[in-house]
Amino acid sequence: MTDQRLRPIYDAMKSANLDAVAFVPGPNFKRLFGRDFHLMERPLIVIVPSEADPVAIVPNLEMASFATLKFPGPVFDWRDEAGYDAAFVAAAEALPQISASKSFGLEAQRMRVFEQIALQKVFPDATFVDAHATISSTRLLKTPEEVEKLRRAIVISEKALEATLDLVRIGQTEKEIEAILISQLFAQGASGLSFDPIVAAGDNSAQPHASARADYKTKRGDALLIDFGASYEGYNADITRTFFLGEVSDRDRRFYETVRSANARGKEVTRPGITAHDVDDSVQQVLEQSEFAEFARHKTGHGLGLDVHEAPQIMRGNHTGLKPGMIFTVEPGLYRLGECGVRIEDDIVVTEHGHESLTTFPRDLRLVG
Amino acid sequence: MTDQRLRPIYDAMKSANLDAVAFVPGPNFKRLFGRDFHLMERPLIVIVPSEADPVAIVPNLEMASFATLKFPGPVFDWRDEAGYDAAFVAAAEALPQISASKSFGLEAQRMRVFEQIALQKVFPDATFVDAHATISSTRLLKTPEEVEKLRRAIVISEKALEATLDLVRIGQTEKEIEAILISQLFAQGASGLSFDPIVAAGDNSAQPHASARADYKTKRGDALLIDFGASYEGYNADITRTFFLGEVSDRDRRFYETVRSANARGKEVTRPGITAHDVDDSVQQVLEQSEFAEFARHKTGHGLGLDVHEAPQIMRGNHTGLKPGMIFTVEPGLYRLGECGVRIEDDIVVTEHGHESLTTFPRDLRLVG
Repeated sequence: MTDQRLRPIYDAMKSANLDAVAFVPGPNFKRLFGRDFHLMERPLIVIVPSEADPVAIVPNLEMASFATLKFPGPVFDWRDEAGYDAAFVAAAEALPQISASKSFGLEAQRMRVFEQIALQKVFPDATFVDAHATISSTRLLKTPEEVEKLRRAIVISEKALEATLDLVRIGQTEKEIEAILISQLFAQGASGLSFDPIVAAGDNSAQPHASARADYKTKRGDALLIDFGASYEGYNADITRTFFLGEVSDRDRRFYETVRSANARGKEVTRPGITAHDVDDSVQQVLEQSEFAEFARHKTGHGLGLDVHEAPQIMRGNHTGLKPGMIFTVEPGLYRLGECGVRIEDDIVVTEHGHESLTTFPRDLRLVG
Repeated sequence: MTDQRLRPIYDAMKSANLDAVAFVPGPNFKRLFGRDFHLMERPLIVIVPSEADPVAIVPNLEMASFATLKFPGPVFDWRDEAGYDAAFVAAAEALPQISASKSFGLEAQRMRVFEQIALQKVFPDATFVDAHATISSTRLLKTPEEVEKLRRAIVISEKALEATLDLVRIGQTEKEIEAILISQLFAQGASGLSFDPIVAAGDNSAQPHASARADYKTKRGDALLIDFGASYEGYNADITRTFFLGEVSDRDRRFYETVRSANARGKEVTRPGITAHDVDDSVQQVLEQSEFAEFARHKTGHGLGLDVHEAPQIMRGNHTGLKPGMIFTVEPGLYRLGECGVRIEDDIVVTEHGHESLTTFPRDLRLVG
């Protein structure tokens, strides 16, 4: 009797002509089995052959947790002192149909090279292919329960941001503001951080992946870019707002309003029937037709859910059609290197007739500190 | 003129007969260049050929940050809209000596499969090997500056633990205690978390990698196992203490004292000249000769530094000789499934004549709440 949880994976494998796929701990694993494990130096791998029972390779010290999955196939555990080779051999013996397999799909953006090497050793005749997109496609359309979990992550994040802004003072370092933000995220009920937050002021705001500095005191007139998110039950908020400390120059105000228009435009055009390309194209046009065209640096956004960066990528050239239940970020930015960066990022869900922005934190230019 | 930062890598490559190695963002990258980048869906790779200038493949939006590295070789950037294929082709053309290479080493526990696939495409004649241990061996002996950074991470962690215990009350959930701990870590100056903390009470403490529950109220007599650490400038504390809530049974007290003896024994025997195997063997003997022998589940520990789990693995069969400057955890545990788990974990550095425990938080059995 087939485990119904595996049905979407069987379907995805069939459409991609895959004879087997392997899962490691992470978003796809969690969506499939309802809970997750640590991705660590001890391999934990689930192999799903097409239309047959899966097999698992599990570190012995995770066996009690693994038992809670009600895994529908044989499990081969291994202990630190003996190493994992024998468990891989046993798993391969339990899957004779894969020896002749032509196509073994891997979560190539998640699985590490050493795990593939271990698989290759026991499946020497298989052809390993990057099936990350295929496997992850089963997570593309979010269920209403998933939307609610992400919404909860966003509510926590926005409350934490408001509480943080109350405590921001000109002269604090980026590190100090970061520490306040993180404390507030957990105080509001975050189960974790979606990623290490970006808290960047002044010239640092112009670096899209800046690290918070402990040796720079924020100054009046600085931009303050905060890109952050709480995770809640595995779902990851990803929000950016940019503020100005105390005052803002006329030029920076026009710079900000250009990004705000691009952000608004990206949301306006979003509805089923258009493509990810169309959304990015609309957003980039706003930036390209502005006086700040030369300062655009990146695509509009990315999908969001159990992974912080997942499909659909909102970029020119991605002709994926939008469908209700897709969730992605709209996060245009402009970056004058050495001076000032502005990014405004919302998390939106495609609905039957348009979109809903799950993020509601105001986007009006705001002076803080 | 050779960049002196690359000298340790050239030496390691020579000893392992590698013609090239590739780095992705992470601990080895940070040790080599002094700063780190995000490991994300956008590949950022540095290729170091033996005794020649390295080449980098960098997402365009990271170029400003990358410039701060003073990278001693050509850099090929790529943009989202065009993809990264052309940058890989250009990098391969800049490295004609690798086309004929027999051995291309990868950080196999860090690099993802899709990055290897991209390399394979442009270096079709190279033989890719797992060089994780070789590359990471350059981080095995810590400098005094590194020891001080880890010590700082530990001071932050231990202050946060003490502050957390002041706020623990019987009846709180594991999630509530976890939120307090994380807030305290950042309040004390953590730059990040070494890993998602484990806060596990009662039967959950017997699962070595438990997740904190929001639906279980802690009870009098429960064990409370806390495994956590602050990171500071990239260096990761990793500390475990186990407490009891309000009271402790005689059996649990003996259980605790057995682990404490094993922890003490592991530190006592540590000195240059013995091996990682010897340390684990001494620790396991304490557990095996106790009345609780059947409840031992894992090796003694692992190396610690820029990575939370690195060499040397402190386990039977690892005959690596200990040398001054090595840092590792001593973390014996006993786990009665469904009932109670105890683990006591210290971070120690091998010194000229023995060891120093960087963790100093008391190990006496302590009742809290």
